[in-house]
Amino acid sequence: MFENLFRGKKGIFSASPELLAPKDRMRAIEGSSSAELAAQLLIAPTALMQLTPEEALTVVSYMTPRKIAEGTTFIKEGDDSDTGYMVLLLEGEVTVENIVVSRRTPVTVTVLGPGSLIGEMGLVDGQARLASCTASSDSRCAVLTRAAFEKLGQDDPQTASKLMSAVALRIAERLRDTSEKLKMYTQLVQAMQQEIDHLMPT
Amino acid sequence: MFENLFRGKKGIFSASPELLAPKDRMRAIEGSSSAELAAQLLIAPTALMQLTPEEALTVVSYMTPRKIAEGTTFIKEGDDSDTGYMVLLLEGEVTVENIVVSRRTPVTVTVLGPGSLIGEMGLVDGQARLASCTASSDSRCAVLTRAAFEKLGQDDPQTASKLMSAVALRIAERLRDTSEKLKMYTQLVQAMQQEIDHLMPT
Repeated sequence: MFENLFRGKKGIFSASPELLAPKDRMRAIEGSSSAELAAQLLIAPTALMQLTPEEALTVVSYMTPRKIAEGTTFIKEGDDSDTGYMVLLLEGEVTVENIVVSRRTPVTVTVLGPGSLIGEMGLVDGQARLASCTASSDSRCAVLTRAAFEKLGQDDPQTASKLMSAVALRIAERLRDTSEKLKMYTQLVQAMQQEIDHLMPT
Repeated sequence: MFENLFRGKKGIFSASPELLAPKDRMRAIEGSSSAELAAQLLIAPTALMQLTPEEALTVVSYMTPRKIAEGTTFIKEGDDSDTGYMVLLLEGEVTVENIVVSRRTPVTVTVLGPGSLIGEMGLVDGQARLASCTASSDSRCAVLTRAAFEKLGQDDPQTASKLMSAVALRIAERLRDTSEKLKMYTQLVQAMQQEIDHLMPT
Protein backbone atom coordinates (compact mmCIF):
# COMPACT_ATOMS: atom_id res chain seq x y z
CA MET A 1 0.00 0.00 0.00
CA PHE A 2 2.74 2.49 0.92
CA GLU A 3 5.69 1.86 -1.30
CA ASN A 4 6.94 5.16 -2.74
CA LEU A 5 9.24 7.75 -1.27
CA PHE A 6 8.91 11.48 -1.80
CA ARG A 7 10.37 12.01 -5.26
CA GLY A 8 13.19 14.53 -5.44
CA LYS A 9 14.53 16.46 -8.44
CA LYS A 10 17.04 13.77 -9.30
CA GLY A 11 14.13 11.46 -9.82
CA ILE A 12 15.87 8.56 -8.10
CA PHE A 13 13.19 6.03 -7.46
CA SER A 14 13.09 2.49 -6.28
CA ALA A 15 10.28 -0.02 -6.37
CA SER A 16 11.58 -1.37 -3.04
CA PRO A 17 12.57 1.66 -0.96
CA GLU A 18 12.88 -0.60 2.08
CA LEU A 19 16.16 -1.75 0.52
CA LEU A 20 17.54 1.79 0.16
CA ALA A 21 20.54 2.82 2.24
CA PRO A 22 20.00 5.90 4.45
CA LYS A 23 22.16 8.07 2.16
CA ASP A 24 20.23 7.01 -0.94
CA ARG A 25 17.00 7.84 0.83
CA MET A 26 18.18 11.36 1.53
CA ARG A 27 19.39 11.69 -2.08
CA ALA A 28 16.06 10.39 -3.37
CA ILE A 29 14.07 13.12 -1.63
CA GLU A 30 16.60 15.91 -2.34
CA GLY A 31 14.91 18.93 -3.92
CA SER A 32 11.42 17.62 -3.24
CA SER A 33 9.40 20.60 -1.99
CA SER A 34 6.85 18.19 -0.54
CA ALA A 35 9.55 16.46 1.50
CA GLU A 36 10.82 19.84 2.73
CA LEU A 37 7.29 20.90 3.65
CA ALA A 38 6.76 17.58 5.41
CA ALA A 39 9.96 18.05 7.45
CA GLN A 40 8.88 21.59 8.41
CA LEU A 41 5.41 20.44 9.42
CA LEU A 42 6.73 17.43 11.31
CA ILE A 43 8.37 19.77 13.81
CA ALA A 44 5.45 22.23 14.01
CA PRO A 45 4.02 22.73 17.52
CA THR A 46 1.03 20.58 16.43
CA ALA A 47 3.31 17.61 15.73
CA LEU A 48 6.74 16.59 17.05
CA MET A 49 8.55 19.82 17.90
CA GLN A 50 11.20 17.95 19.92
CA LEU A 51 13.03 16.92 16.73
CA THR A 52 15.71 19.04 15.04
CA PRO A 53 15.19 20.04 11.36
CA GLU A 54 17.85 17.50 10.34
CA GLU A 55 16.16 14.71 12.28
CA ALA A 56 12.80 15.71 10.76
CA LEU A 57 14.21 15.39 7.22
CA THR A 58 15.67 11.99 8.11
CA VAL A 59 12.26 10.83 9.36
CA VAL A 60 10.60 12.18 6.19
CA SER A 61 13.00 10.10 4.08
CA TYR A 62 11.27 7.08 5.64
CA MET A 63 7.76 8.42 4.94
CA THR A 64 5.49 7.82 1.97
CA PRO A 65 3.48 10.60 0.29
CA ARG A 66 -0.21 9.97 -0.21
CA LYS A 67 -3.17 11.86 -1.66
CA ILE A 68 -6.59 11.51 -0.06
CA ALA A 69 -9.70 12.50 -2.01
CA GLU A 70 -12.37 14.62 -0.31
CA GLY A 71 -14.86 12.46 1.54
CA THR A 72 -12.51 9.50 2.04
CA THR A 73 -12.54 7.96 5.52
CA PHE A 74 -8.93 6.80 5.60
CA ILE A 75 -8.90 5.73 9.28
CA LYS A 76 -11.95 3.92 10.68
CA GLU A 77 -12.76 3.72 14.39
CA GLY A 78 -12.51 0.13 15.60
CA ASP A 79 -10.57 -1.02 12.54
CA ASP A 80 -7.91 -3.43 13.74
CA SER A 81 -6.39 -4.39 10.39
CA ASP A 82 -4.01 -2.13 8.45
CA THR A 83 -3.48 0.08 11.53
CA GLY A 84 0.30 0.12 11.78
CA TYR A 85 1.04 3.65 10.61
CA MET A 86 0.73 7.32 11.51
CA VAL A 87 -0.11 10.17 9.16
CA LEU A 88 1.24 13.74 8.94
CA LEU A 89 -1.28 16.04 7.25
CA LEU A 90 0.50 18.28 4.68
CA GLU A 91 -2.43 19.92 2.93
CA GLY A 92 -6.21 19.89 3.35
CA GLU A 93 -8.53 19.33 6.26
CA VAL A 94 -9.46 16.20 8.19
CA THR A 95 -12.49 15.65 10.44
CA VAL A 96 -11.99 13.32 13.41
CA GLU A 97 -15.13 11.57 14.61
CA ASN A 98 -15.98 9.33 17.53
CA ILE A 99 -18.94 7.01 17.84
CA VAL A 100 -19.38 7.62 21.53
CA VAL A 101 -23.01 6.98 22.32
CA SER A 102 -24.82 3.73 21.63
CA ARG A 103 -22.53 3.19 18.64
CA ARG A 104 -24.87 5.12 16.35
CA THR A 105 -24.30 8.87 16.31
CA PRO A 106 -20.77 9.93 15.39
CA VAL A 107 -19.53 12.98 17.31
CA THR A 108 -17.03 15.32 15.68
CA VAL A 109 -14.06 15.40 18.03
CA THR A 110 -11.96 17.92 16.14
CA VAL A 111 -11.06 19.27 12.70
CA LEU A 112 -7.37 19.09 11.81
CA GLY A 113 -5.29 21.15 9.38
CA PRO A 114 -1.78 20.94 7.89
CA GLY A 115 0.87 20.04 10.45
CA SER A 116 -1.41 17.67 12.37
CA LEU A 117 -0.18 14.23 13.30
CA ILE A 118 -2.88 11.58 13.05
CA GLY A 119 -3.03 8.01 14.30
CA GLU A 120 0.25 7.98 16.21
CA MET A 121 -1.12 5.15 18.37
CA GLY A 122 -0.90 3.00 15.21
CA LEU A 123 2.85 3.50 15.14
CA VAL A 124 3.13 2.38 18.78
CA ASP A 125 0.76 -0.56 19.15
CA GLY A 126 -0.97 -1.10 15.79
CA GLN A 127 -4.19 -1.87 17.69
CA ALA A 128 -7.76 -0.88 16.77
CA ARG A 129 -8.26 2.77 15.82
CA LEU A 130 -9.78 5.00 18.51
CA ALA A 131 -11.51 7.40 16.10
CA SER A 132 -12.44 7.83 12.43
CA CYS A 133 -10.66 10.33 10.17
CA THR A 134 -12.28 11.68 7.01
CA ALA A 135 -10.74 14.13 4.52
CA SER A 136 -13.15 17.07 4.39
CA SER A 137 -11.21 18.46 1.40
CA ASP A 138 -8.75 16.96 -1.07
CA SER A 139 -5.69 16.33 1.08
CA ARG A 140 -2.04 15.37 0.92
CA CYS A 141 -0.18 13.62 3.66
CA ALA A 142 2.98 11.74 4.60
CA VAL A 143 2.69 8.26 6.08
CA LEU A 144 5.13 6.54 8.47
CA THR A 145 4.54 2.80 8.81
CA ARG A 146 5.78 0.60 11.67
CA ALA A 147 7.97 -1.26 9.16
CA ALA A 148 9.56 2.04 8.04
CA PHE A 149 10.03 3.06 11.69
CA GLU A 150 11.79 -0.24 12.40
CA LYS A 151 14.05 0.36 9.40
CA LEU A 152 14.82 3.83 10.75
CA GLY A 153 15.64 2.20 14.10
CA GLN A 154 18.23 -0.01 12.43
CA ASP A 155 19.70 2.75 10.24
CA ASP A 156 19.64 5.65 12.70
CA PRO A 157 18.67 4.54 16.22
CA GLN A 158 19.34 7.99 17.71
CA THR A 159 16.71 9.65 15.48
CA ALA A 160 14.33 6.69 16.01
CA SER A 161 14.72 7.07 19.78
CA LYS A 162 13.98 10.82 19.63
CA LEU A 163 11.00 10.21 17.33
CA MET A 164 9.55 7.58 19.68
CA SER A 165 10.11 9.85 22.71
CA ALA A 166 8.21 12.64 20.94
CA VAL A 167 5.37 10.27 19.95
CA ALA A 168 5.24 8.91 23.53
CA LEU A 169 5.00 12.50 24.80
CA ARG A 170 1.96 13.13 22.58
CA ILE A 171 0.28 9.93 23.77
CA ALA A 172 1.08 10.88 27.38
CA GLU A 173 -0.60 14.27 26.81
CA ARG A 174 -3.69 12.55 25.46
CA LEU A 175 -3.71 10.20 28.46
CA ARG A 176 -3.58 13.19 30.82
CA ASP A 177 -6.47 14.89 28.97
CA THR A 178 -8.56 11.72 28.93
CA SER A 179 -7.83 11.00 32.63
CA GLU A 180 -8.89 14.54 33.51
CA LYS A 181 -12.17 14.14 31.59
CA LEU A 182 -12.76 10.77 33.25
CA LYS A 183 -12.36 12.39 36.68
CA MET A 184 -14.90 15.05 35.74
CA TYR A 185 -17.36 12.44 34.50
CA THR A 186 -16.89 10.37 37.66
CA GLN A 187 -17.81 13.41 39.73
CA LEU A 188 -20.73 14.16 37.40
CA VAL A 189 -22.08 10.63 37.76
CA GLN A 190 -21.94 10.93 41.56
CA ALA A 191 -23.79 14.26 41.50
CA MET A 192 -26.43 12.90 39.15
CA GLN A 193 -26.90 9.80 41.32
CA GLN A 194 -27.57 12.08 44.28
CA GLU A 195 -30.13 14.01 42.23
CA ILE A 196 -31.83 10.77 41.18
CA ASP A 197 -31.91 9.55 44.81
CA HIS A 198 -33.42 12.89 45.79
CA LEU A 199 -36.08 12.80 43.05
CA MET A 200 -37.02 9.16 43.63
CA PRO A 201 -40.34 8.74 45.44
CA THR A 202 -39.59 7.35 48.88
CA MET B 1 18.79 12.06 45.11
CA PHE B 2 19.53 9.07 42.89
CA GLU B 3 23.25 8.76 42.60
CA ASN B 4 24.29 5.16 43.14
CA LEU B 5 24.40 2.24 40.77
CA PHE B 6 23.64 -1.33 41.72
CA ARG B 7 26.82 -2.52 43.40
CA GLY B 8 28.40 -5.62 41.90
CA LYS B 9 30.85 -8.07 43.45
CA LYS B 10 33.88 -6.17 42.25
CA GLY B 11 32.67 -3.26 44.31
CA ILE B 12 33.48 -0.70 41.64
CA PHE B 13 31.72 2.42 42.67
CA SER B 14 31.68 5.98 41.52
CA ALA B 15 30.27 9.03 43.19
CA SER B 16 29.37 10.33 39.71
CA PRO B 17 28.02 7.35 37.78
CA GLU B 18 26.83 9.73 35.08
CA LEU B 19 30.48 9.91 34.02
CA LEU B 20 30.87 6.14 33.71
CA ALA B 21 31.43 4.61 30.29
CA PRO B 22 28.86 1.95 29.29
CA LYS B 23 31.40 -0.88 29.78
CA ASP B 24 32.29 0.35 33.25
CA ARG B 25 28.62 0.49 34.12
CA MET B 26 28.17 -3.15 33.16
CA ARG B 27 31.33 -4.06 35.10
CA ALA B 28 30.09 -2.12 38.12
CA ILE B 29 26.85 -4.13 38.36
CA GLU B 30 28.47 -7.48 37.51
CA GLY B 31 27.59 -10.15 40.06
CA SER B 32 24.96 -8.00 41.74
CA SER B 33 22.00 -10.28 42.40
CA SER B 34 19.77 -7.21 42.76
CA ALA B 35 20.78 -6.01 39.29
CA GLU B 36 20.10 -9.45 37.85
CA LEU B 37 16.73 -9.58 39.57
CA ALA B 38 15.95 -6.08 38.27
CA ALA B 39 16.81 -7.12 34.70
CA GLN B 40 14.59 -10.20 35.00
CA LEU B 41 11.70 -8.19 36.42
CA LEU B 42 12.12 -5.40 33.84
CA ILE B 43 11.12 -7.85 31.12
CA ALA B 44 8.32 -9.54 33.08
CA PRO B 45 4.88 -9.38 31.42
CA THR B 46 3.94 -6.70 33.98
CA ALA B 47 6.73 -4.40 32.75
CA LEU B 48 8.59 -4.12 29.43
CA MET B 49 8.58 -7.60 27.91
CA GLN B 50 9.61 -6.25 24.49
CA LEU B 51 13.25 -5.95 25.62
CA THR B 52 15.79 -8.76 25.33
CA PRO B 53 17.56 -9.94 28.54
CA GLU B 54 20.74 -8.19 27.32
CA GLU B 55 18.92 -4.90 26.72
CA ALA B 56 17.27 -5.24 30.14
CA LEU B 57 20.65 -5.58 31.85
CA THR B 58 21.93 -2.56 29.92
CA VAL B 59 18.94 -0.50 31.09
CA VAL B 60 19.48 -1.70 34.68
CA SER B 61 23.08 -0.45 34.51
CA TYR B 62 21.52 3.04 34.20
CA MET B 63 19.13 2.51 37.12
CA THR B 64 19.56 3.37 40.77
CA PRO B 65 18.56 1.01 43.61
CA ARG B 66 16.37 2.45 46.33
CA LYS B 67 14.75 1.21 49.52
CA ILE B 68 11.31 2.47 50.52
CA ALA B 69 10.10 2.07 54.10
CA GLU B 70 6.57 0.79 54.75
CA GLY B 71 4.08 3.64 54.77
CA THR B 72 6.14 6.01 52.61
CA THR B 73 4.20 7.79 49.86
CA PHE B 74 7.03 8.08 47.35
CA ILE B 75 4.90 9.42 44.47
CA LYS B 76 2.21 12.01 45.23
CA GLU B 77 -0.75 12.71 42.94
CA GLY B 78 -0.51 16.22 41.51
CA ASP B 79 3.15 16.63 42.48
CA ASP B 80 4.86 18.44 39.61
CA SER B 81 8.36 18.71 41.06
CA ASP B 82 10.80 15.80 41.17
CA THR B 83 8.68 13.78 38.70
CA GLY B 84 11.24 12.88 36.05
CA TYR B 85 11.70 9.19 36.79
CA MET B 86 10.04 5.80 36.67
CA VAL B 87 10.30 3.02 39.23
CA LEU B 88 10.56 -0.74 38.85
CA LEU B 89 9.32 -2.53 41.98
CA LEU B 90 11.76 -5.33 42.96
CA GLU B 91 10.41 -6.36 46.34
CA GLY B 92 7.40 -5.43 48.46
CA GLU B 93 3.95 -4.09 47.74
CA VAL B 94 2.76 -0.67 46.60
CA THR B 95 -0.76 0.78 46.82
CA VAL B 96 -1.79 3.16 44.04
CA GLU B 97 -4.43 5.70 45.04
CA ASN B 98 -6.42 8.30 43.17
CA ILE B 99 -8.25 11.25 44.68
CA VAL B 100 -11.11 11.11 42.24
CA VAL B 101 -14.11 12.60 43.92
CA SER B 102 -14.19 16.10 45.37
CA ARG B 103 -10.47 15.84 46.02
CA ARG B 104 -11.07 14.36 49.47
CA THR B 105 -11.51 10.59 49.48
CA PRO B 106 -8.63 8.65 47.96
CA VAL B 107 -9.69 5.59 45.99
CA THR B 108 -7.36 2.59 45.81
CA VAL B 109 -6.78 2.02 42.11
CA THR B 110 -4.62 -1.06 42.41
CA VAL B 111 -2.05 -2.87 44.52
CA LEU B 112 1.24 -3.65 42.79
CA GLY B 113 3.84 -6.33 43.46
CA PRO B 114 7.39 -7.09 42.28
CA GLY B 115 7.85 -6.62 38.52
CA SER B 116 5.51 -3.64 38.37
CA LEU B 117 6.60 -0.51 36.53
CA ILE B 118 5.44 2.66 38.24
CA GLY B 119 5.33 6.27 37.04
CA GLU B 120 6.46 5.69 33.46
CA MET B 121 4.73 8.94 32.48
CA GLY B 122 7.44 10.68 34.51
CA LEU B 123 10.10 9.32 32.19
CA VAL B 124 8.21 10.66 29.16
CA ASP B 125 6.94 14.08 30.17
CA GLY B 126 8.00 14.73 33.77
CA GLN B 127 4.62 16.40 34.38
CA ALA B 128 2.40 16.18 37.46
CA ARG B 129 1.80 12.70 38.83
CA LEU B 130 -1.58 11.12 38.02
CA ALA B 131 -1.80 9.00 41.17
CA SER B 132 -0.19 8.49 44.57
CA CYS B 133 1.96 5.46 45.36
CA THR B 134 2.57 4.26 48.90
CA ALA B 135 4.70 1.32 49.98
CA SER B 136 2.39 -0.99 51.94
CA SER B 137 5.39 -3.03 53.05
CA ASP B 138 9.13 -2.39 53.19
CA SER B 139 10.08 -2.32 49.52
CA ARG B 140 13.04 -2.26 47.20
CA CYS B 141 13.00 -0.76 43.73
CA ALA B 142 15.13 0.39 40.80
CA VAL B 143 14.76 3.96 39.54
CA LEU B 144 15.38 5.24 36.01
CA THR B 145 15.61 9.03 35.78
CA ARG B 146 15.15 11.11 32.64
CA ALA B 147 18.80 12.17 32.92
CA ALA B 148 19.90 8.52 33.03
CA PHE B 149 17.63 7.75 30.07
CA GLU B 150 19.22 10.57 28.08
CA LYS B 151 22.66 9.20 28.92
CA LEU B 152 21.52 5.77 27.72
CA GLY B 153 20.31 7.45 24.52
CA GLN B 154 23.79 8.82 23.90
CA ASP B 155 25.61 5.62 24.84
CA ASP B 156 23.30 3.05 23.28
CA PRO B 157 20.55 4.66 21.16
CA GLN B 158 19.24 1.29 19.94
CA THR B 159 18.43 0.12 23.46
CA ALA B 160 17.06 3.58 24.34
CA SER B 161 14.79 3.45 21.29
CA LYS B 162 13.48 0.00 22.21
CA LEU B 163 12.97 1.07 25.83
CA MET B 164 11.02 4.16 24.77
CA SER B 165 8.91 2.12 22.33
CA ALA B 166 8.04 -0.30 25.15
CA VAL B 167 7.20 2.57 27.53
CA ALA B 168 5.08 4.24 24.79
CA LEU B 169 3.24 0.95 24.33
CA ARG B 170 2.35 0.85 28.03
CA ILE B 171 1.11 4.44 27.94
CA ALA B 172 -0.88 3.65 24.77
CA GLU B 173 -2.52 0.72 26.60
CA ARG B 174 -3.47 2.99 29.48
CA LEU B 175 -4.88 5.54 27.02
CA ARG B 176 -7.02 2.82 25.42
CA ASP B 177 -8.30 1.68 28.83
CA THR B 178 -9.05 5.23 29.95
CA SER B 179 -10.77 6.08 26.63
CA GLU B 180 -12.94 2.98 26.97
CA LYS B 181 -13.93 3.97 30.52
CA LEU B 182 -14.67 7.51 29.35
CA LYS B 183 -17.00 6.15 26.65
CA MET B 184 -18.85 4.07 29.26
CA TYR B 185 -19.21 7.08 31.55
CA THR B 186 -20.45 9.25 28.66
CA GLN B 187 -23.16 6.69 27.98
CA LEU B 188 -23.93 6.42 31.70
CA VAL B 189 -24.33 10.20 32.02
CA GLN B 190 -26.76 10.20 29.08
CA ALA B 191 -28.82 7.39 30.60
CA MET B 192 -28.90 9.12 33.99
CA GLN B 193 -29.94 12.40 32.38
CA GLN B 194 -32.88 10.61 30.79
CA GLU B 195 -33.83 9.15 34.16
CA ILE B 196 -33.64 12.59 35.79
CA ASP B 197 -35.79 14.09 32.99
CA HIS B 198 -38.28 11.28 33.52
CA LEU B 199 -38.41 11.73 37.31
CA MET B 200 -38.63 15.52 37.15
CA PRO B 201 -42.12 16.86 37.90
CA THR B 202 -43.50 18.36 34.65
